Amino acid sequence: MMIMKHDATEEDIKRIVKEIRHYGLKADVSRGDFRTVIGLVGNEANVPFDHIAILPGVKEVIKIDTPYKLISREYGRATGENGEARKPVMIGNLQIGNGEPIIMAGPCAVENKKQLFMIAEAVKKAGAHVLRGGIFKPRSSVHSFQGLGGIDRKSAEQALKWMRDAGREFGLPVVTEVRGEDHVDLAAEYVDILQIGSRNMYNQDLLAKVGRKDKPVLLKRHFGAGIEEFLSFAEYIAAEGNKNIILCERGIVPVGKGKEFTRYTLDLGAVPAMKKETYLPVIVDPSHGTGRRDLIFNMSCAAIAAGADGLMIEAHYNPAEAIVDGSQTITPQELQDIIKACREIHKLVAGRAGSQ
Amino acid sequence: MMIMKHDATEEDIKRIVKEIRHYGLKADVSRGDFRTVIGLVGNEANVPFDHIAILPGVKEVIKIDTPYKLISREYGRATGENGEARKPVMIGNLQIGNGEPIIMAGPCAVENKKQLFMIAEAVKKAGAHVLRGGIFKPRSSVHSFQGLGGIDRKSAEQALKWMRDAGREFGLPVVTEVRGEDHVDLAAEYVDILQIGSRNMYNQDLLAKVGRKDKPVLLKRHFGAGIEEFLSFAEYIAAEGNKNIILCERGIVPVGKGKEFTRYTLDLGAVPAMKKETYLPVIVDPSHGTGRRDLIFNMSCAAIAAGADGLMIEAHYNPAEAIVDGSQTITPQELQDIIKACREIHKLVAGRAGSQ
Amino acid sequence: MMIMKHDATEEDIKRIVKEIRHYGLKADVSRGDFRTVIGLVGNEANVPFDHIAILPGVKEVIKIDTPYKLISREYGRATGENGEARKPVMIGNLQIGNGEPIIMAGPCAVENKKQLFMIAEAVKKAGAHVLRGGIFKPRSSVHSFQGLGGIDRKSAEQALKWMRDAGREFGLPVVTEVRGEDHVDLAAEYVDILQIGSRNMYNQDLLAKVGRKDKPVLLKRHFGAGIEEFLSFAEYIAAEGNKNIILCERGIVPVGKGKEFTRYTLDLGAVPAMKKETYLPVIVDPSHGTGRRDLIFNMSCAAIAAGADGLMIEAHYNPAEAIVDGSQTITPQELQDIIKACREIHKLVAGRAGSQ
Amino acid sequence: MMIMKHDATEEDIKRIVKEIRHYGLKADVSRGDFRTVIGLVGNEANVPFDHIAILPGVKEVIKIDTPYKLISREYGRATGENGEARKPVMIGNLQIGNGEPIIMAGPCAVENKKQLFMIAEAVKKAGAHVLRGGIFKPRSSVHSFQGLGGIDRKSAEQALKWMRDAGREFGLPVVTEVRGEDHVDLAAEYVDILQIGSRNMYNQDLLAKVGRKDKPVLLKRHFGAGIEEFLSFAEYIAAEGNKNIILCERGIVPVGKGKEFTRYTLDLGAVPAMKKETYLPVIVDPSHGTGRRDLIFNMSCAAIAAGADGLMIEAHYNPAEAIVDGSQTITPQELQDIIKACREIHKLVAGRAGSQ
Repeated sequence: MMIMKHDATEEDIKRIVKEIRHYGLKADVSRGDFRTVIGLVGNEANVPFDHIAILPGVKEVIKIDTPYKLISREYGRATGENGEARKPVMIGNLQIGNGEPIIMAGPCAVENKKQLFMIAEAVKKAGAHVLRGGIFKPRSSVHSFQGLGGIDRKSAEQALKWMRDAGREFGLPVVTEVRGEDHVDLAAEYVDILQIGSRNMYNQDLLAKVGRKDKPVLLKRHFGAGIEEFLSFAEYIAAEGNKNIILCERGIVPVGKGKEFTRYTLDLGAVPAMKKETYLPVIVDPSHGTGRRDLIFNMSCAAIAAGADGLMIEAHYNPAEAIVDGSQTITPQELQDIIKACREIHKLVAGRAGSQ
Repeated sequence: MMIMKHDATEEDIKRIVKEIRHYGLKADVSRGDFRTVIGLVGNEANVPFDHIAILPGVKEVIKIDTPYKLISREYGRATGENGEARKPVMIGNLQIGNGEPIIMAGPCAVENKKQLFMIAEAVKKAGAHVLRGGIFKPRSSVHSFQGLGGIDRKSAEQALKWMRDAGREFGLPVVTEVRGEDHVDLAAEYVDILQIGSRNMYNQDLLAKVGRKDKPVLLKRHFGAGIEEFLSFAEYIAAEGNKNIILCERGIVPVGKGKEFTRYTLDLGAVPAMKKETYLPVIVDPSHGTGRRDLIFNMSCAAIAAGADGLMIEAHYNPAEAIVDGSQTITPQELQDIIKACREIHKLVAGRAGSQ
Repeated sequence: MMIMKHDATEEDIKRIVKEIRHYGLKADVSRGDFRTVIGLVGNEANVPFDHIAILPGVKEVIKIDTPYKLISREYGRATGENGEARKPVMIGNLQIGNGEPIIMAGPCAVENKKQLFMIAEAVKKAGAHVLRGGIFKPRSSVHSFQGLGGIDRKSAEQALKWMRDAGREFGLPVVTEVRGEDHVDLAAEYVDILQIGSRNMYNQDLLAKVGRKDKPVLLKRHFGAGIEEFLSFAEYIAAEGNKNIILCERGIVPVGKGKEFTRYTLDLGAVPAMKKETYLPVIVDPSHGTGRRDLIFNMSCAAIAAGADGLMIEAHYNPAEAIVDGSQTITPQELQDIIKACREIHKLVAGRAGSQ
Repeated sequence: MMIMKHDATEEDIKRIVKEIRHYGLKADVSRGDFRTVIGLVGNEANVPFDHIAILPGVKEVIKIDTPYKLISREYGRATGENGEARKPVMIGNLQIGNGEPIIMAGPCAVENKKQLFMIAEAVKKAGAHVLRGGIFKPRSSVHSFQGLGGIDRKSAEQALKWMRDAGREFGLPVVTEVRGEDHVDLAAEYVDILQIGSRNMYNQDLLAKVGRKDKPVLLKRHFGAGIEEFLSFAEYIAAEGNKNIILCERGIVPVGKGKEFTRYTLDLGAVPAMKKETYLPVIVDPSHGTGRRDLIFNMSCAAIAAGADGLMIEAHYNPAEAIVDGSQTITPQELQDIIKACREIHKLVAGRAGSQ
């Protein structure tokens, strides 16, 4: 990346951008309050950094030696004030990554308006900050219920409107998963955060598509992906200019033989490890990460203790009624207990994981 | 599935299809030379099979207890003659899955016309049947070369034309990977087989899209997917009506700590195991499966010994020159040795894996 | 298991034991304050439970349908008072599994007397309860330092004496790993807890050997073992009569490709999951579980939040000096901060994981 | 390692050995027909190689940069004639690793004399070279049948005698697994090859113990171990002086979720990969590696095609009768078919994997 001088002119910046393009790369111009930083998208092997370093307006050239340059802590720090990493991701007025844990809760699948509104009201009362709800459901079998979005476009749009309206009614930004490229434009009209599910973490064309949208993106780690892979694919979003990315740990495939006691294995060590690598907020999904309602309380607390900036939890006024994932869904009362305990734990660990 | 009587009328078939739709499912009508079979796409829980079984024209109702019903051996057998599984996948005049091993070979990435034509000629001479070449390259880093398809649509189309022309010139059907939904329509105009790479195996919207095309699909197993998952996602293609699917084992993530001696771990036991579950042909990619040129000969032979119906191998007239994956690319001479040995081995094991 | 009546006689018990032996199994007689329970070791397939159920003194026969019968919550509950699970494991006067978190700390490897005593004093001051120190070091290479126990028997015994003496000096029970069968008798003379390392979790002959000792055993989960396997191998210890077993989660092999950001992946979901299956206490080793000093604080807090009964942490007055594992070793000051935060977190989650 | 001159004296060798011991390491003196090579066991960091290189009799000092120095191809080549790797492992008059595939076959568990003799006769007729039979069975549950060796020492010795006698009767060397350290001395009196099972691959004390015996050792790879780990633990045997080690690939834990179609995943790519690293022979166990009788034919052929030097297969005159592992056991007739096909395949691939 090229760190520009405080007094670098627009002309200087344009010159660098042009130079970068000349070598077949894209430039990522990141303007902080104090200075501008220009990152590179593409293969740097043939870029003459020595030459660029002496162009007008360039203060310093720093090579970042990872595949996730644009979301790296170094890059964020360069654009921030006083050497601090850049500001947290904003979801409307809500900031995530720089204060108390942000709780996203709601049903696994949106089933109908009444169900969604009842749950939205309940999770708001319980203290949640964001409403989640699945419309385009990724499923491991084509023969399973694919969500209202799986029926037709009209049903999908209807469900998206319910999401938007429930969010407005109860003062909650809303998040939903987009699975195919066609969903992105449609969902972006109605929701505040676009979620990419774990099965699509490696889907670089979908990542590029949400990277071109002006909406925060919640990216879930694939259940078989290493941390470096996760960050490298998040970079596909950032490379299109969208750095409002929330990383979500949601469990990896369990090891060993025999009965599975948890549906997935939550990798909580990844939380502080990733916070030290990147300036992006990191949240945890204990619902999919365990698949067990009776473990959600403990694993939510553990996630916050590990340094997570928030949680994504499946909640329903009557879990037994839920069409999908009832066994990992909790009640609003349990949600309230969790939020209360997590706030206390957050105070005890604040500033320890990924502090700068 | 409903196995229809030999003398079932179109009226009978339509009645069943209508009945199935009435319960919110889709019908898969599969017409064999001797009889018609009707499969179901969707949740069968509420379908009144007892009622359907006594409708006119229905010979027998059989429930298939897996998530991959339409590609199952039972389903294929029901539509085939004399209880045999259905015919092999046809690639033009070439049949795969029912005779000597089909060899797909070519460069990892298409670089330019000359490179492609030289390689096409060489692999043809070596005995290969299909020309492979990557245009839309999936990469683990946005900063790596993404193939000619990664530059712009014009470059992508140019490369696709080269593929088509090289195929025609040397009498080789051609296969290329499509990564995003946008690539499918474009590539389908020029190539004979649409490949879905391992990173997109879980991308059900892309699978559905190629499922609606009238082209054979080569689906690679994700490197972290179990066999049941692999078959269940292949079903997403079949559910759209396209059953010309070639399954490809290309290696899973190595276990354990320490230096990796092979880039991935070829799961050759999956080959006969899958052939016993489904009527689809199964091929193996020893290039990605090992990442090592010096292991390709042995692992190609092993794949055929395990019962594979073919191989996909990266070959280049000068592997050291290849932009991508040179270390796992072999020469045409090595390819010829492999093809020769594999034909001999095929004779020794023919009829053992997945025989009916 | 056979739950005996309150007034069952010794004669009744002996009759049952004899009957069990008659069918080629071993009997595990577990005498609680209120009643006696008799478990079975071996294949129950041919045991005539109907016949046994009507023998004098037998109140009830219950079949436990897991491979870890003797350490199961059901078995513990049957012997406990008022239907509660049995008492916690006692380490001298220290109880683990029923109150505030027990912290085991000390050097990875015992190097010399001075080093050990300095660390023992420091971890005691920091609030630790048990002194750990490695003498027989398991190593992945025969060419690496194998601990003082690897030199000869005399050096091993000397180091064991230092452990015993340091423990006495600072009022700390001591724990060390035994790796081979020969180590067990020797170590049992000097230490309070016998540790079985992760690489030996599947070593059933070693497990049987510590199962015949009258010392608590700390069993670490193998880094590739599922939870069912872990509990099934703990059962090898219990089957010899020793149920004073402390289970330790210490990380599983990371998934995926690319750079490893943590040496292992701590499976904290296993903590509450195991506590619901067994009456045994569960602790966590964040040092080996992460391999990174800078993650120990967060992961210790997360472990306690997940419901762990204690922690095992590598500490050294000067981590940079440690011969083995310095990069994952913390200072006594950091240990003190951890212990303080963990106590607070424990209060917030007490009674949530594995409550009965 | 120090490669000695052809005319190096015993005095010269002793001087080097003494020098090595002086630095706290052990010397491995390996005398070939043409020259002597001295390897090091221990941490080389402080060994003054420059100094040793100029001692009398030393031709050359070569540092081997892996944790498996003594079994490395370089080390073997140095001791061999004309730069070739050392001679194959000898089992009596049978050589393994340098000619046609060696087939080890027999029952999973020895049940009684008659069963063993009937099977021995049958596998001999089918063309097998070595008789296998389990006496000390490793089991994942203490409640399962542990083999005749699990009853008492007398039963174990009786079964070992049957093995020896069956071997003599039918001219077959015999192999059995030793699980605990106590078994080693006992078994070594009766069998020709000592087997270490996969669960004990990490049991370095057991490895050291068989390393001190004058018998070939068959070491199975742990189902979660990487190749580097496998070779590094084989080195524990070699470090004690025993280099007659046969490596056995027997399957790793399957990846992904869902139904397991094979009990383990045979890693056949490890076969040629290991043969390029070490001079040790490599065999494959398709019985445990698949758990399925109907896959043994194909996977045996695939193993030989991959370059394996032999196979270990469970066979029984009546698989349905076998107490343990019947579902993966084949008949003598099937064994004969396999041996016949494997011989043909071996001819097609001979000299390709791990040739020097």
